[in-house]
Amino acid sequence: MKKLKRRLKYAMVGGGENSFIGPIHRMAVRLDDTADLIDGCYSHKDNWRDLIERVRGKVDFLTICTPNDSHYEIAKAALDADMHVFCEKPVSMNAKEALELQKLSLQKKKIIAVPFTYTGNAMIKLARDLVRKGVLGRICKVNIEYVQGSFRKIDPNEPTDARIAWKKDPLRSGPSCVTADIGVHAAALIEYTTGLQIESVLADISTFSKGTVLEDDASILMRLTSGAKASLVTSKVATGEENGVRIRIYGEKASCYWNQEDPNYLYVKYPFEPERIYKRNAPYIANLSPVAKRLSRIPAGHPEGFIEAFANIYSEFCATISGVRKGDFPDIGTGVMTMKFVDAVLKSARTGSRWVRL
Amino acid sequence: MKKLKRRLKYAMVGGGENSFIGPIHRMAVRLDDTADLIDGCYSHKDNWRDLIERVRGKVDFLTICTPNDSHYEIAKAALDADMHVFCEKPVSMNAKEALELQKLSLQKKKIIAVPFTYTGNAMIKLARDLVRKGVLGRICKVNIEYVQGSFRKIDPNEPTDARIAWKKDPLRSGPSCVTADIGVHAAALIEYTTGLQIESVLADISTFSKGTVLEDDASILMRLTSGAKASLVTSKVATGEENGVRIRIYGEKASCYWNQEDPNYLYVKYPFEPERIYKRNAPYIANLSPVAKRLSRIPAGHPEGFIEAFANIYSEFCATISGVRKGDFPDIGTGVMTMKFVDAVLKSARTGSRWVRL
Amino acid sequence: MKKLKRRLKYAMVGGGENSFIGPIHRMAVRLDDTADLIDGCYSHKDNWRDLIERVRGKVDFLTICTPNDSHYEIAKAALDADMHVFCEKPVSMNAKEALELQKLSLQKKKIIAVPFTYTGNAMIKLARDLVRKGVLGRICKVNIEYVQGSFRKIDPNEPTDARIAWKKDPLRSGPSCVTADIGVHAAALIEYTTGLQIESVLADISTFSKGTVLEDDASILMRLTSGAKASLVTSKVATGEENGVRIRIYGEKASCYWNQEDPNYLYVKYPFEPERIYKRNAPYIANLSPVAKRLSRIPAGHPEGFIEAFANIYSEFCATISGVRKGDFPDIGTGVMTMKFVDAVLKSARTGSRWVRL
Amino acid sequence: MKKLKRRLKYAMVGGGENSFIGPIHRMAVRLDDTADLIDGCYSHKDNWRDLIERVRGKVDFLTICTPNDSHYEIAKAALDADMHVFCEKPVSMNAKEALELQKLSLQKKKIIAVPFTYTGNAMIKLARDLVRKGVLGRICKVNIEYVQGSFRKIDPNEPTDARIAWKKDPLRSGPSCVTADIGVHAAALIEYTTGLQIESVLADISTFSKGTVLEDDASILMRLTSGAKASLVTSKVATGEENGVRIRIYGEKASCYWNQEDPNYLYVKYPFEPERIYKRNAPYIANLSPVAKRLSRIPAGHPEGFIEAFANIYSEFCATISGVRKGDFPDIGTGVMTMKFVDAVLKSARTGSRWVRL
Repeated sequence: MKKLKRRLKYAMVGGGENSFIGPIHRMAVRLDDTADLIDGCYSHKDNWRDLIERVRGKVDFLTICTPNDSHYEIAKAALDADMHVFCEKPVSMNAKEALELQKLSLQKKKIIAVPFTYTGNAMIKLARDLVRKGVLGRICKVNIEYVQGSFRKIDPNEPTDARIAWKKDPLRSGPSCVTADIGVHAAALIEYTTGLQIESVLADISTFSKGTVLEDDASILMRLTSGAKASLVTSKVATGEENGVRIRIYGEKASCYWNQEDPNYLYVKYPFEPERIYKRNAPYIANLSPVAKRLSRIPAGHPEGFIEAFANIYSEFCATISGVRKGDFPDIGTGVMTMKFVDAVLKSARTGSRWVRL
Repeated sequence: MKKLKRRLKYAMVGGGENSFIGPIHRMAVRLDDTADLIDGCYSHKDNWRDLIERVRGKVDFLTICTPNDSHYEIAKAALDADMHVFCEKPVSMNAKEALELQKLSLQKKKIIAVPFTYTGNAMIKLARDLVRKGVLGRICKVNIEYVQGSFRKIDPNEPTDARIAWKKDPLRSGPSCVTADIGVHAAALIEYTTGLQIESVLADISTFSKGTVLEDDASILMRLTSGAKASLVTSKVATGEENGVRIRIYGEKASCYWNQEDPNYLYVKYPFEPERIYKRNAPYIANLSPVAKRLSRIPAGHPEGFIEAFANIYSEFCATISGVRKGDFPDIGTGVMTMKFVDAVLKSARTGSRWVRL
Repeated sequence: MKKLKRRLKYAMVGGGENSFIGPIHRMAVRLDDTADLIDGCYSHKDNWRDLIERVRGKVDFLTICTPNDSHYEIAKAALDADMHVFCEKPVSMNAKEALELQKLSLQKKKIIAVPFTYTGNAMIKLARDLVRKGVLGRICKVNIEYVQGSFRKIDPNEPTDARIAWKKDPLRSGPSCVTADIGVHAAALIEYTTGLQIESVLADISTFSKGTVLEDDASILMRLTSGAKASLVTSKVATGEENGVRIRIYGEKASCYWNQEDPNYLYVKYPFEPERIYKRNAPYIANLSPVAKRLSRIPAGHPEGFIEAFANIYSEFCATISGVRKGDFPDIGTGVMTMKFVDAVLKSARTGSRWVRL
Repeated sequence: MKKLKRRLKYAMVGGGENSFIGPIHRMAVRLDDTADLIDGCYSHKDNWRDLIERVRGKVDFLTICTPNDSHYEIAKAALDADMHVFCEKPVSMNAKEALELQKLSLQKKKIIAVPFTYTGNAMIKLARDLVRKGVLGRICKVNIEYVQGSFRKIDPNEPTDARIAWKKDPLRSGPSCVTADIGVHAAALIEYTTGLQIESVLADISTFSKGTVLEDDASILMRLTSGAKASLVTSKVATGEENGVRIRIYGEKASCYWNQEDPNYLYVKYPFEPERIYKRNAPYIANLSPVAKRLSRIPAGHPEGFIEAFANIYSEFCATISGVRKGDFPDIGTGVMTMKFVDAVLKSARTGSRWVRL
């Protein structure tokens, strides 16, 4: 981790101590000493406008980790106040809002980073770079899962966990639950690793858990540019699953597999050679993927995890806004694509699983 | 393995020494000393009618492991000659033929076993029995892969492997390649383990390899009875995959995972308890699944593999036709269902991925 | 599996239906159709002399799977009756007896095979051949475990399992329990894979379970020829372990790992390259290890297990005695070495863990 | 992570940007915002006395990450200056020095923490607590490896990596290389998890790599209080290994397995029940091990790694010195024990592998 020229400053909306994601943002920033948190409104969203006034001109960026329904409005206000933005996914309630943010971002010349965390994992960087180098050959198929059992983890005798409750509420969460909450990570991973675009989607969605009208399970087929196909299963009712992000990418020459719960390894299979296990920060990584090397803090065999992947997004974002280098991180472009993806999934599901273009 | 009352006799059509599946049938039968092979025509299908005449009244059953296009005709002739039949999948070229075989099987009171091999694995028996006992609760979702890279394993300097070539030829293979060849195993596994039926399917199919007009890759969504959903990826172009059958079954209370390449273990996940690894023939198996116990030859920790699973189909079939007990093995019922599945997948693919009822 | 020129015949002493190992011998022989079992005395050892008389001149070999105390005597009688012998390990009660068998074997020009089963696994063949080819460089260290929990698996409310009871009895089992029963497999694996000899051993042994005066746990250090070292933990009280044979071989250039409970894979690690997973019967195996290829029945991805490894010992033994080829299997040489190993371990343990030469 | 009452301050000796361990200390402290680094001398040890004078009365503790030979002197000076100490292992060159530090620590009422990092892993806390609760029953045996291939990772065309060179030099490293550098972690893990003490050791050591007279490989047997035994293989020449810390603890009732390279899981095996996989921060952890819960930052399924384990040592140490609670971390007591362990291993090796009491 190269030191930045000057220390950055940031403020935060949402993400109090009891939230899941707020402390992760703060740990991620501290891990690499990327920026100093100088102010924040963590619990109620009423006073975020005051916060923005307070820190205008004093911070480099604003981190937004409120529930989904306020992302758009806060991000817009932050851009208007000439701050860069680090905004939780989904970046908005729909593609229209995301496109507006993108437009404003361009006008104001401010960057919106969106933490599609898994694109920050060093071994996902390696996968992307192996694809770019042609090691896998032309990509034909991607098979990806993002499954959680969180909606099955609610003790029936207990009131619903507040950290889950808002995700079931269309007013806070938007028109989609599982697709907008975690399916978007899968869409981002597919495009990031393959370098292809999702052209159209087809979906079958379900609501298996109680207390919500939103979809908590989805099976989604995709057609990618250049004729490749993808299949995604994403679920909040995958009982017993913790955070199962598993991606298999099949090319004409080789295929690779990555599992978020075992993130330091990338498995590559060949037709005529032994399978290989690539390891984060092993000696051969630097040549294959300079960014995977750059984003490793400690030697192979010393596991890095989720917080480190999250920190990678911040460190690349901060390197970019401080002018050190053009970083490798997901921005509003991915935010727009993933919202188009959500909109198309919902439209397909409403129309009997028709193919819908993004 | 209880000994049968009397030794059975059988003959074989197809499956010479150079075939993949023929030697497996013979090893499977010998492993448990289930029957004696007394005659066969292994290389050309021309003379199978002579064989049937020769062994009529002398064998208990006929094993058929020719390419797909002759299954129907040979099975029909064997039933007509009052033999039981052990016929490779797909049992026919389409559902219509399979239904005819089923009808004839009933008329002749002869059994047609079909080696959906993986339903013979002890840990799949256990999975089925855990579902039956309600351990997983109501089943919501099945996510299954059956992926091979065999069509990528052809050395470009070599003529195509003869064991693969016929699978690419619609005249030998029928109207479907990957779905009929291995997708049917997935369909059989879904119905066997969950006890639910596949009501309708939706498919997106592709042909990525050269030298065939048939589909070598398919993404298939399913709706099961009782509202459950399933997703299947099946492929012959999954570069580097050997024989990747991986099934995840999600219920309201628990989920389970099984991987054919690691077949002695069943992984069960719960919301509030540690994941459990059930092991073939461990002391607790007998109570949970008498059939999983019965079909284990050696102690836990001593791996059994593919041949043993195959032998389980034979031993249950032979126990049945010799009147020892009603065995637990896939018969023409599963044969019919899987051919309806293939027909529906092809129809869905032809109509822009519409939902098609089986 | 090449067919033998003529069918072999064999008889068996010990190994009735209720024994663990008897049925495995019979399944292993049948799997490859190696020989026909024509006679046997399975339950009492009293009449084995009658059996030998009965089958003298009619069988090619005698299989011995009685408890340890009778191996020597029966093997001797079989050799005297001009039969080849396939004798369970430990081949005798001590090295002296094993040496006598070796001498007699030479005199009579009859072969004694000893099923050090794991040396029959295709991936162990591959490991041996990678070492021979210099892929691992000079071998420095071997770390091996052979651990079982069988002595912890006795229901306290039940009489001890008869299949375990005799192993605790010095009259049947001999002066060593765990070392002679399973430690010998480890010794055989070390010498087989590395091509080095065990020069001296040092041991610390314990008796943790009730009902025996014999050692049920041992930690053994070894010095091998050429300066390499080895460490072995072997136990019958490794609670919860099934049949944990795990070997790690470290050379100057690379290392390899094999786990009997996952036997179709060999993991090879390098300093500057990704770890490789070699798979049984993958396309690259034939060049690296012709014998690993020869001893594979079915394609990669279709698991073979313990019975298959056992059958490999028989098929190589039978190929040898029928003159087809000089097979690759453990014979009385390994039998003698392993009994010297047992004697040396016991002597070291008695003398306060001194180094003892084999 | 509960916030401390007031912010702590610390300074650092050694551990510049190019060192392996220095940045880890700083990341670990920042991750949980445990303390502020206010001063340090990172590159030369000459001026550490000046540093201590400079920060005397201004810091709560001094972190020492110089090479081994200066630990004792610097720690002594820091205690004399009334600072708590966080000192890298091995805490000294021999047991005598460690005992002096312990004495001085008591006199000055200052704490010396020693980062036996792996005792900071949440799943090692759980293992310790399962043992304490009697889940494993009386402990009989521990089998542990700590193997690295770092001495094989030196490109023959390159000058030796400076981060490795000093470890080979007896003047900087002390009389032991692999035992003092990583074997001590194993000794600490054994005592921490089992609650037993190492009474005596027996060792066979080797020097396989060039450029050093110190041992780079050791096989060590141990006798623990209450009659349990342990076996350790530790190596710097385990080619291809990254940081292989693998521990298996066998009790009368159950056993457990933990692998540092897969640190979020603890595998527990039983004689009559399925194996269980305990997961960091799963819902059932809080009851079994409050400290494992306390030291988890993010939900199960979101991996934590090496830096997080390291941070756990700091956070417990800081909680202790700031009076928040009595923390759970390795202190000079473990430092003394591990140096006695090193001394005894060397003595045993010098005397032909005799048993030597600690």
